Amino acid sequence: MKIKTVLIGLCLAVGLVFGSSAMAAENANEPLMIQEQGSFMAGGTVIPAKEAYNPLAPTPESQTLHGDHAYIFYQIPVNAKKYPMAFLHGAGQFSRTWETTPDGREGFQNIFLRKGYGVYLIDQPRRGNAGRSTVSETIEAKPDEQFWFGQFRLGIYPNYYEGTQFAVGEENLDQFFRQITPNTGPFDAEVISDAMAAMFDRIGAGIFVTHSQGGGIGWKTATKTKNLKAIVSYEPGSGFLFPKGEVPAPIKNSTAFGDFKAFEIPLEDFMAFTKIPIVIYYGDNIPTEPTTEPHKDYWRCAMQMANKWAETVNKHGGDVTVVYLPNIGIHGNTHFPFSDKNNRQIADLLAQWLKEKGLD
Amino acid sequence: MKIKTVLIGLCLAVGLVFGSSAMAAENANEPLMIQEQGSFMAGGTVIPAKEAYNPLAPTPESQTLHGDHAYIFYQIPVNAKKYPMAFLHGAGQFSRTWETTPDGREGFQNIFLRKGYGVYLIDQPRRGNAGRSTVSETIEAKPDEQFWFGQFRLGIYPNYYEGTQFAVGEENLDQFFRQITPNTGPFDAEVISDAMAAMFDRIGAGIFVTHSQGGGIGWKTATKTKNLKAIVSYEPGSGFLFPKGEVPAPIKNSTAFGDFKAFEIPLEDFMAFTKIPIVIYYGDNIPTEPTTEPHKDYWRCAMQMANKWAETVNKHGGDVTVVYLPNIGIHGNTHFPFSDKNNRQIADLLAQWLKEKGLD
Repeated sequence: MKIKTVLIGLCLAVGLVFGSSAMAAENANEPLMIQEQGSFMAGGTVIPAKEAYNPLAPTPESQTLHGDHAYIFYQIPVNAKKYPMAFLHGAGQFSRTWETTPDGREGFQNIFLRKGYGVYLIDQPRRGNAGRSTVSETIEAKPDEQFWFGQFRLGIYPNYYEGTQFAVGEENLDQFFRQITPNTGPFDAEVISDAMAAMFDRIGAGIFVTHSQGGGIGWKTATKTKNLKAIVSYEPGSGFLFPKGEVPAPIKNSTAFGDFKAFEIPLEDFMAFTKIPIVIYYGDNIPTEPTTEPHKDYWRCAMQMANKWAETVNKHGGDVTVVYLPNIGIHGNTHFPFSDKNNRQIADLLAQWLKEKGLD
Repeated sequence: MKIKTVLIGLCLAVGLVFGSSAMAAENANEPLMIQEQGSFMAGGTVIPAKEAYNPLAPTPESQTLHGDHAYIFYQIPVNAKKYPMAFLHGAGQFSRTWETTPDGREGFQNIFLRKGYGVYLIDQPRRGNAGRSTVSETIEAKPDEQFWFGQFRLGIYPNYYEGTQFAVGEENLDQFFRQITPNTGPFDAEVISDAMAAMFDRIGAGIFVTHSQGGGIGWKTATKTKNLKAIVSYEPGSGFLFPKGEVPAPIKNSTAFGDFKAFEIPLEDFMAFTKIPIVIYYGDNIPTEPTTEPHKDYWRCAMQMANKWAETVNKHGGDVTVVYLPNIGIHGNTHFPFSDKNNRQIADLLAQWLKEKGLD
């Protein structure tokens, strides 16, 4: 036993001497060394019992329901960096967004573990493993995948955009479609951001990485906890928050989603955005001029609003950067850059930004 | 780079020389060394499109829906044993069953990784992260937790059974209740066992560990794949399968679930149960005589049927063992022995059985 302990100590020491990359190697063939992993539910509420419980005649009125929490699976690598990263999916998706890519490569979960970050993968309240809702819901099995193929900018079904970074293939598309999972209760940004704040209250200071619809949750969460050290948002959609008097007019949008609106919050809440570095990334195939091409106009509006928002936050002393990937020479990305074929390049770009902001 | 590689090689060699326990140490404070981890969706079906897709006017009829798959998260430790273990939850539960316990200790996921087994955690079709269903469903937010407190044999709410192995505490019970997550489509044992067979077709030969309602899925799965090396079933409920002419009469049951039935399958399917070792464990507080005490009669019937089933399979040449834990001196377990306070003892018991069967 003593020899075993000494040798494990030696292995750990090797990791310390040669840096975290020696143990949590960036090469997918090398083992991940995990100091701790587990899961927990954060936030949520309780429907209380209204009368005494009789075990021989149980009624809903005499019982409770715990719901509206988030579910989180976390892994902390050996020699972890100071701030962990918490990852929130977008609309119709769950933690899988950040796990294995549709074509079976490593996603951001493993990639950032290998870079030495603690990784928290979230299922938001009323989605995936956080399915227990305090509000009833009907889920319709309504075929809609060709729409999402377009909205997620793989192309216009069945054609992919030229030079797409999506790993084209029948099996891959099958896995990608199966990443979809329904809301088990009404989508409620307050409920979700409350749970996110509760999560950060529990885990302490960290970096919040959001995707798509999760972007709006990220902004709200920043107004509810002081534990965000940075926000990284991939392709945020609607939900940009501006202070009174500075809310831009809706942007005219030709898609079924209607005009792209901005939302008002008190200036004191808005100032939270000026206290931390924020970076926003958009993939490819987003036009700068209005278009009636399917789907593209929604993302034109989103990116335009993101730029207005960055300008407004920065005017108040903030540090927001919006990156349209083609502008820095990275082409072909879909709405899911972190699981596209070039996701290691996308991860390195983020790692470099975190380093610049002193967060690694 | 070369020195780093050599030293990693040395660390791996240390692991090889001193056995897998040196690297995937059984002590919760020591790191887990994971050779590979990821997620995938297995099985499922597709609602096909009935007409051509027009991206400017998407209709349900012109689109597809991929659903009814299982979602699986897997981890393979360094120097893994030959056969991995796949874990299926019970009714109203998801993969969390096997993860962190309600009081924050390590569950079977980490415990068996530390013992050197590959671990596959399943969300069954229409549950948790496998939420996409091809059949619509309404989820009612109906308070029912005091009922489950009893059905899961923690006690009769708000009182715990004397000497319970549940980690009593307000926070723990809160986390335990939040392990509940709804069906997102109708429960369908054929759909689920099809997905389980598809999973084993993908991962190869392994040990199937089931819980409660999952028990019935395990039996069905054994008739659909040749890749099961063993079945381990914790507290299986309804779903025991007998050959024609040997189906026992329903057992009279005083609870709301009604009389406890057995089901008939062809003898050639039944013979699958005789080809592999099977062990069934039940916790504490299950009476041998009929009772009108809430909940207990259901489990009396289940265990009685399990014993009849074991007898029948063994008569046909099988190797089924039913263990009522108090009979071997282990007292106080609930319906969730693998996350009770003594879950390491429960795991060691299983590990010993696997060893006896030549499966470690």
